Amino acid sequence: MSDTVKYVLDESRIPKAWYNLVADLPRPPEPVLHPGTHQPIGPGDLAPLFPMALIQQEVSAERYIEIPGPVRDVYRQWRPSPLYRARRLERALDTPARIYYKYEGVSPAGSHKPNTAVPQAFYNKEEGVRRLATETGAGQWGSALAYAGAVFGLQVDVFMVKVSFQQKPYRKALMETWGARCVASPSTETNAGRQILAQFPESNGSLGIAISEAVEVAAQRDDTKYALGSVLNHVLMHQTIIGEEAIAQLEMADDYPDIVVGCTGGGSNFAGIAFPFIGAELRGGRKVSVVACEPAACPSLTRGKYAYDFGDTGHLTPLVKMHTLGSTFIPPGFHAGGLRYHGMAPLVSLTQELGLIQSRAYTQTKCFEAGVQFARTEGILPAPEANHAVRGAIDEALRCKAEGVSRAILFNLCGHGHFDMQAYMDYFAGKLEDRAYDEAALAESLAGLPDLAA
Amino acid sequence: MSDTVKYVLDESRIPKAWYNLVADLPRPPEPVLHPGTHQPIGPGDLAPLFPMALIQQEVSAERYIEIPGPVRDVYRQWRPSPLYRARRLERALDTPARIYYKYEGVSPAGSHKPNTAVPQAFYNKEEGVRRLATETGAGQWGSALAYAGAVFGLQVDVFMVKVSFQQKPYRKALMETWGARCVASPSTETNAGRQILAQFPESNGSLGIAISEAVEVAAQRDDTKYALGSVLNHVLMHQTIIGEEAIAQLEMADDYPDIVVGCTGGGSNFAGIAFPFIGAELRGGRKVSVVACEPAACPSLTRGKYAYDFGDTGHLTPLVKMHTLGSTFIPPGFHAGGLRYHGMAPLVSLTQELGLIQSRAYTQTKCFEAGVQFARTEGILPAPEANHAVRGAIDEALRCKAEGVSRAILFNLCGHGHFDMQAYMDYFAGKLEDRAYDEAALAESLAGLPDLAA
Repeated sequence: MSDTVKYVLDESRIPKAWYNLVADLPRPPEPVLHPGTHQPIGPGDLAPLFPMALIQQEVSAERYIEIPGPVRDVYRQWRPSPLYRARRLERALDTPARIYYKYEGVSPAGSHKPNTAVPQAFYNKEEGVRRLATETGAGQWGSALAYAGAVFGLQVDVFMVKVSFQQKPYRKALMETWGARCVASPSTETNAGRQILAQFPESNGSLGIAISEAVEVAAQRDDTKYALGSVLNHVLMHQTIIGEEAIAQLEMADDYPDIVVGCTGGGSNFAGIAFPFIGAELRGGRKVSVVACEPAACPSLTRGKYAYDFGDTGHLTPLVKMHTLGSTFIPPGFHAGGLRYHGMAPLVSLTQELGLIQSRAYTQTKCFEAGVQFARTEGILPAPEANHAVRGAIDEALRCKAEGVSRAILFNLCGHGHFDMQAYMDYFAGKLEDRAYDEAALAESLAGLPDLAA
Repeated sequence: MSDTVKYVLDESRIPKAWYNLVADLPRPPEPVLHPGTHQPIGPGDLAPLFPMALIQQEVSAERYIEIPGPVRDVYRQWRPSPLYRARRLERALDTPARIYYKYEGVSPAGSHKPNTAVPQAFYNKEEGVRRLATETGAGQWGSALAYAGAVFGLQVDVFMVKVSFQQKPYRKALMETWGARCVASPSTETNAGRQILAQFPESNGSLGIAISEAVEVAAQRDDTKYALGSVLNHVLMHQTIIGEEAIAQLEMADDYPDIVVGCTGGGSNFAGIAFPFIGAELRGGRKVSVVACEPAACPSLTRGKYAYDFGDTGHLTPLVKMHTLGSTFIPPGFHAGGLRYHGMAPLVSLTQELGLIQSRAYTQTKCFEAGVQFARTEGILPAPEANHAVRGAIDEALRCKAEGVSRAILFNLCGHGHFDMQAYMDYFAGKLEDRAYDEAALAESLAGLPDLAA
């Protein structure tokens, strides 16, 4: 058989609806609580931040939400994304496993993030919004929203964590090329930023501070709303187009996965590939083993507590029930910046509570080792985040070899690493450290979780 | 009509043969001359450097050369590449022109270069070669060959111009991720390198020196051959798959270009998109206006002399008849490193002599201005080299507007700029300088062209 096995869907087969796992779960998600009153919030509470169409999606229990025509039209620039069979990797591993990967790095921003940036920009534009404010850590989300803003003619203001702003000037340049404004956070543009700077003039910033700044700008200005790149239900739902396409492409291959693997930070790319398969199983379809691969340095699913917590460190956001390391948890340095989040998407957390997924934590050195093996066989250089999924898939394939069993493994290659070459340089130079988090700090962070009885 | 208009060929329609323009030209190319004797060389003279299959392609007059199955198999990883109609750009320009672009940045290395790196690696592997030596300036070619070497299991040694080696560590890291060895040139590994270092210990290197090093290594070792990323007939022929696919895709659009635009450095991506259309015209098809866009700082087609010259500064290569600025010409600094070559592919030069193409020189600031406009409308960030073609296409579209005429414009977007963000940063910071070359130095370089009567 040929070395390159690529399954290409005709663009007429771009899914016409996103899939909403909530419709098939045995119990509904826990309510989102107001940060002050601890009472469930309603759509109106979110109206200053999000357009009504997205708020309705956030609370919807409908199984399918139609993808608007103009969104499908923009998706067509890079979708359907290809599904590959990793023949050369299989041969290098000498495994009987059948390894498939969905490649989301073909988007203009190079990751899965535009799958939700585009509809978010569209719905905001439809409701008359002129400007979007958001935060970004490593820069993947900020650049995806900058791209979507360029397409729909929206101004995009990105609060970028200062240490990344300084260390990743090329990500910033990418956002600016698409016309976005990129500001180092903490900034002097918001009260939240000014307060931090007054207290800590040399602050490196954090995702939590940047979220506070973006939320503040959106809440204060009528023409501006907020956009989030992961965690929320509607964001995860937009990503299900990945898994929906994969199902159709695996039909072309006359195959179905025994195992589905994704990396998890906030949970959106993982949900994107996994939820359509979990939903099919819940509706009576084939059982699938679903594996979430997270960084050992920020292990929300494997070491976090399933509890109500804030989404940000500034405690401005609503409380959501999720696996969390506590909002004061600061992970040690590692290169998969997109996976540095103290919590996990509530829907992903719920699937773990329901026993529908399992999770696994990997150190970064093992992940880069897998990424380099993947690049040298399959020819695509993965993002550091995606390397966690590559590691998970390779480990499953090696298990197949050890057990002498051929299983079908599907994983999501959520983005390329073109803007992450420093990490590869550090890996080759032997400079990657697998730094462990501080157990005492984790215990303290968990002890500080909000007390809902209070 | 929809904003995204993408023409996707089924992979069964990847061309089965490359197109050889030589078959349709009204006169044959000028012979290649031995650097010492000035007599035409034969296939045997090239045997130490290239496998026989490539030498035969280099001198072939056959119209079509079949693409081997294993090469088409690897091509299928990213080919057929998409053809887009630039609807959003057309609207921004308010032009009646119909602008199409072929996007070659979808390859694993991010440019058109793998179109020839893959067959070159294949033919070498077939003939028992174990190692390829090559040079790279900005790094596009080196990374493409590193990728192809990984696919076919060949060791790849890349001599990278020292100043690029130091300024572009991420390109080097990309090559190393694919398993290639990347050496700063001049190096201590070759006589050519050691001689330069003895004379100029602080030498920044040049493409000419790096070519000399790679050629020396290939000539001296039985298991090693040399690979070149542009200029040669067989390299240009491998790239014709771009134009062949574009013809089929424009048939899907029920359209045919009035104007074809490409950027030119050594000439390979330009030939790739243009030669199939020029050939069709020569065989009695529709007349096409073909425009080569080159950097004003290194203007071989617009200011060079059509004469025999060396391909390298060390004068180790054969003499070819081409448009040349003289092998001692040193262009001033500019960001499109892939277009810094003193000569032009002999076949491209011949088409200009025959009046089949026209050429145009652009300063880099005007090219980045076009590239940013393209990124903000079409969503893809072009490589600095590709920006020359974008500039040319936009200018043609603006001419259509001025004249009130709708013409079909096709250009080759030969690669993305993910590894060239420093150039965009300099552009946004107002730091890009349009440095002119020294007229006296050009005159001197041209005066030093080899005297064949001697």
